[in-house]
Amino acid sequence: MPNLKPPVTTTEQALRYRDELQAIDPSVEYLMTLYLSPELTPEEIHKAAQAGIVGVKSYPRGVTTNSEGGIESYEAYHPVFAAMEEAGMVLNLHGEVPSSAATNTCVLNAEPAFLPHLRKLHARFPRLRIVLEHATTRAAVECVKSLGPTVACSITAHHLSLTVDDWAGQAWHFCKPVAKYPDDRAALQEVVKEGHPRFFLGSDSAPHPYESKAAASPTSACAAGVYTSPILLPLVAHLLESFGALDKLEGFVSGHGRAFYERPVGEGAVRVVLRRASNHVVASQGYGAGPTHVVPFWAGKQLGWEIGGNAS
Amino acid sequence: MPNLKPPVTTTEQALRYRDELQAIDPSVEYLMTLYLSPELTPEEIHKAAQAGIVGVKSYPRGVTTNSEGGIESYEAYHPVFAAMEEAGMVLNLHGEVPSSAATNTCVLNAEPAFLPHLRKLHARFPRLRIVLEHATTRAAVECVKSLGPTVACSITAHHLSLTVDDWAGQAWHFCKPVAKYPDDRAALQEVVKEGHPRFFLGSDSAPHPYESKAAASPTSACAAGVYTSPILLPLVAHLLESFGALDKLEGFVSGHGRAFYERPVGEGAVRVVLRRASNHVVASQGYGAGPTHVVPFWAGKQLGWEIGGNAS
Repeated sequence: MPNLKPPVTTTEQALRYRDELQAIDPSVEYLMTLYLSPELTPEEIHKAAQAGIVGVKSYPRGVTTNSEGGIESYEAYHPVFAAMEEAGMVLNLHGEVPSSAATNTCVLNAEPAFLPHLRKLHARFPRLRIVLEHATTRAAVECVKSLGPTVACSITAHHLSLTVDDWAGQAWHFCKPVAKYPDDRAALQEVVKEGHPRFFLGSDSAPHPYESKAAASPTSACAAGVYTSPILLPLVAHLLESFGALDKLEGFVSGHGRAFYERPVGEGAVRVVLRRASNHVVASQGYGAGPTHVVPFWAGKQLGWEIGGNAS
Repeated sequence: MPNLKPPVTTTEQALRYRDELQAIDPSVEYLMTLYLSPELTPEEIHKAAQAGIVGVKSYPRGVTTNSEGGIESYEAYHPVFAAMEEAGMVLNLHGEVPSSAATNTCVLNAEPAFLPHLRKLHARFPRLRIVLEHATTRAAVECVKSLGPTVACSITAHHLSLTVDDWAGQAWHFCKPVAKYPDDRAALQEVVKEGHPRFFLGSDSAPHPYESKAAASPTSACAAGVYTSPILLPLVAHLLESFGALDKLEGFVSGHGRAFYERPVGEGAVRVVLRRASNHVVASQGYGAGPTHVVPFWAGKQLGWEIGGNAS
């Protein structure tokens, strides 16, 4: 996630950030991305690809956390995309256009309004691998399905569970893109159940502290994001089982994404094993202490699965 | 508002509640309504009408504050509606159907899904005066316009201002029905600007205490409602001026509603006078103290109008 402060826009920054992450847990293989911004050049793309950076992420201006410097039009980036296509880098899209009363655009239809941009990009750069990140609508699922093998789509765990009713008045279920209509959620569930190889898990987990979620001020909105990391795999297993897609678990959380990113399972790779749980209640008080503690999704509720350990 | 605990379902309860209100401010004329529920009989309707009660309010089950006992089907109430038509009582409708994943119904389309019920009721009881309360969608505006002179519609101040983007992650802007798309807000503004006589202000102001709005718990949603009472008339003047409808202020806040309810301006009636304000900033800390203080809409923001006094 390059939407940090400051944003990660150069190879050096990305490598430094990877070092910081690896110092925390050296056993994880971190796939780094750069932030699409006017500073990014075709030369930098080739340099980044050489250094093992796998993608570039685009945020339309102002639509998510720390995206004030996001893009407004893709035309200016065509030389960058051409370099990415050549170097085999992946373009990761936050697929929403900014809200505008003049065009009746708001958080509910911002994703469908983005899809023509995706179609145009794919038509212009058919070999460029593109991931439409954290899709939330039937329109997005159908659009990605209709495009070629270089276009994939990630789906979060929480969007397989939530609809707009769940985040209405409930800050901890509010994220961007917002969860949509029941039929949109059904479309996400259906494409997972179908086992479609170009759809895979992208957690988009956001550990906002308690105080930035609790609406302490009537004059400002809370932070957008849902925190699923500590329960991610048991949660996904639980949700997939709820709509009859448990047999698609491995492909959805691991196989499809690895295949699209061209990262075969390496030697000595660790397999996570899940087992049924009879008493896996998610911590309702969350993690940490004081106003900065972080409350996860599914807090206080039961999950049917838990991490059983690792296997080689 | 009969959606109290316990609900106001009999003439006695309504008169007792009116007495309580008049003890607080005897200068106000309170128009009382009963809660539509299985206990209500045609006999009770005639008794209520005799006692000066003007309306009956219907809440579909579970869609707003304290509506767990609300109606599920109108068929059973046809004898009550016939008595109301005869007695000249007004039917006040909370126009939403309950959410249901099976029919893709959620808080966003619950109002359009209710409109066929309104059409059917009006067709069956063409002389029954009906108010579709706090409408939020273009579909509702167009439906009410298309019906006969016995069907009117109330609009809140806050729905003239908000869209879904405003309550996404902002508890103090969350109410039911939720504010919808920019085009829906435009339709509400347009019908006010048009000066349509069957559309008038209904504040639907809800003074929920701070602690029930601040999402203190990640496992439960906050109370639904926006509190506008202390600033209502200056706010409406401010909003109408913002979309060029200031000349429609008196009809919208007073004349149209009085005409529909057949309440001509009585002798000795008091007129509220508004004047331009250069420094009317709405209290950002709200009213009262401690966790039960109530924060109003527009908190901390400026209004272009203020109450200038009363005139006979």
